[in-house]
Amino acid sequence: MSGEIIPQTLKKVVEEVASLPGYGEKSAQRLAVNILNMPRGEGIQLIKTFLEMLEKIHPCKECGLFTEDELCPVCKDEERDRQTICVVEESFDAFAIERTGKYKGLYHVLGGRLSPLEEITAEDLNIESLVERVEKNPIKEVILATNPTVEGEATASYIYNLLKNKGITISRIAYGLPFGAVLENADDFTLSKALEHKIPI
Amino acid sequence: MSGEIIPQTLKKVVEEVASLPGYGEKSAQRLAVNILNMPRGEGIQLIKTFLEMLEKIHPCKECGLFTEDELCPVCKDEERDRQTICVVEESFDAFAIERTGKYKGLYHVLGGRLSPLEEITAEDLNIESLVERVEKNPIKEVILATNPTVEGEATASYIYNLLKNKGITISRIAYGLPFGAVLENADDFTLSKALEHKIPI
Repeated sequence: MSGEIIPQTLKKVVEEVASLPGYGEKSAQRLAVNILNMPRGEGIQLIKTFLEMLEKIHPCKECGLFTEDELCPVCKDEERDRQTICVVEESFDAFAIERTGKYKGLYHVLGGRLSPLEEITAEDLNIESLVERVEKNPIKEVILATNPTVEGEATASYIYNLLKNKGITISRIAYGLPFGAVLENADDFTLSKALEHKIPI
Repeated sequence: MSGEIIPQTLKKVVEEVASLPGYGEKSAQRLAVNILNMPRGEGIQLIKTFLEMLEKIHPCKECGLFTEDELCPVCKDEERDRQTICVVEESFDAFAIERTGKYKGLYHVLGGRLSPLEEITAEDLNIESLVERVEKNPIKEVILATNPTVEGEATASYIYNLLKNKGITISRIAYGLPFGAVLENADDFTLSKALEHKIPI
């Protein structure tokens, strides 16, 4: 950004947003322009909604899920299966699983994934607190539901090694073809995993 | 978003950001998570930078360029060629042109482009004020530098029709191969325009 006619406060916003993971200069510019192009009152309202979010939301002190209370609704719910923990990278992964209505256990949010490229190490993630939860509670199963990416795999594998001697069942979410997929367009890895883990009918 | 465990303030932020042009639910989620994952003080600082931007920046009252003053640095600069106006969709287009150092005239920011799909009509853009500027000032040339997209073309064509009888030169930024492009990968339209507007050496 070397243009001298760009206003300082706009330049600052673009630089700060561009430094967020997954953002670059162009997407940061687009966000700034979109907000500046809104009727000013609406723009200020949107930013105040962000401030309200930052004031109210924090990680659940037990599982790390974003919540407005000390404990999230899942950890507070006595009806949930308290012997199973599903480990996810981010809160939105848990929100997605929750929408299926198929999972009744607890969650544990890592707050990211191991990534040498982004310099994210085990210390940056909520891994130690997961091991503590497993040790201090009557947990029977941990489901590793990190993303099926290189980083997600590495993270799952790292956690597996920490938990494998704790006398619990450790599982990984299934690989396979996504519903509605076209077989010939599937990548080789997914297709070979789908065959390997074939299900008896 | 039907997950009942998602906190209300987070849901609200995601819904509002997802309604911005160019954003969807996933990109809105990513932005919210990125900001929530920052150390809280830094997150609040980032949002306050946005607020400061919204308080200080507004369109230049002459040309519409984002500025912190009443008039932007270009309109204030007596050394600029005040007989030429370059019409762009957004302020960042002008900032990009300015970085080349090749343009010495004035700008006019439309604040978008005609788009039936997004229901953006001529009344939503700063077109009337452009016609007024041309009528009230000794303008000799208007360069239409809207993007070379379907919407950008339609916008340029619409403005051309409004200005064609005002006794001024109206030009369009050149089409051609971008610097560093590979000929065989260029799309047909760009390639045919590059041939059509060939330059004598």
